[in-house]
Amino acid sequence: MTTIKKVKWKPGTMIYPIPVAMVSCGTSVKDANIITIAWTGTMSSNPPYCYIGVRKSRYSYDIIRKTGEFVINLTSTKLVRAADWCGVKSGRDHAKFKEMKLTPTPSSAVAAPMILESPISIECRVKQMLELGSHDVFIAEVLAIHADERYLDKKTGALHLSKAGLVAYSHGQYYELGRNLGKFGFSVKKKK
Amino acid sequence: MTTIKKVKWKPGTMIYPIPVAMVSCGTSVKDANIITIAWTGTMSSNPPYCYIGVRKSRYSYDIIRKTGEFVINLTSTKLVRAADWCGVKSGRDHAKFKEMKLTPTPSSAVAAPMILESPISIECRVKQMLELGSHDVFIAEVLAIHADERYLDKKTGALHLSKAGLVAYSHGQYYELGRNLGKFGFSVKKKK
Repeated sequence: MTTIKKVKWKPGTMIYPIPVAMVSCGTSVKDANIITIAWTGTMSSNPPYCYIGVRKSRYSYDIIRKTGEFVINLTSTKLVRAADWCGVKSGRDHAKFKEMKLTPTPSSAVAAPMILESPISIECRVKQMLELGSHDVFIAEVLAIHADERYLDKKTGALHLSKAGLVAYSHGQYYELGRNLGKFGFSVKKKK
Repeated sequence: MTTIKKVKWKPGTMIYPIPVAMVSCGTSVKDANIITIAWTGTMSSNPPYCYIGVRKSRYSYDIIRKTGEFVINLTSTKLVRAADWCGVKSGRDHAKFKEMKLTPTPSSAVAAPMILESPISIECRVKQMLELGSHDVFIAEVLAIHADERYLDKKTGALHLSKAGLVAYSHGQYYELGRNLGKFGFSVKKKK
């Protein structure tokens, strides 16, 4: 029997691993910006609601506040360098799409363009805002999703997201997803 | 040059990979329950705010609503079977701690016990509730964190979370974290 000892820490942000969201915003492909966000997630399934937490000081904050729209583009291993760079640099000083050789592409339900190179783009419209301290939270409804057709099964239409090479972020580090540990519900599945 | 084609989908919940939170709740180690939650994340850094999205029908919903407290326990590879089971089964029918051989342990700031076997336990007090549809969202302040001392550097006190073997959830599947792709800021770090 292992004796486990837990040590108390000061409060902080320790929910990991989390997604790496390249959030695109703006009114057209010409003025589009990208901000990389770790404080994001799904809040409700039906209707689908999600959120992003953004500091007021960020260049994208005013854009999203004004337009009430953004697109969450998931980060693949191929995009991790651009995602990191878009999280560190500011759209005040850089044309991020151009400098990262990414392609702003018109969305279907919002004016904010999506990132063509991202495997999954999620169009969002802000429904509510919360001021919680360092970050303001934009709560948004998901209006549409666009998936790279390479990850869709041509026969069934099923999405094979595992092929997209999504990146997780945990305590300051980016990771590939590793070994598959099972499918939701595996613990109660009867063995054949 | 690769030609990328994106295919439009119906709106849904597609922000991945995400954490696997074993949320413990209750008023003491005697009546503690566990619900596994995927709709969770950090909302703001300072003060640290997080959330969980819970269906009204879940057994833990009324407990958290009444007590205004819960603990987010992160899932390691050793805990993934218990996490899956606690997400499928109901505390109405099962003594989850006992059946999964987990140890409810008193927290420091809330009455809800933590799961001793989890590498990281995050004590939370609800500050606000949102009704968004299928899930209600409990927005909570992080009051304290407890880390398994095996993952703390004895000299520096630094947390080596990568040793904890955290589990990610993506589109219905559980995964280990895989290859490290770099540290936050790596894209702008000058080479020595």
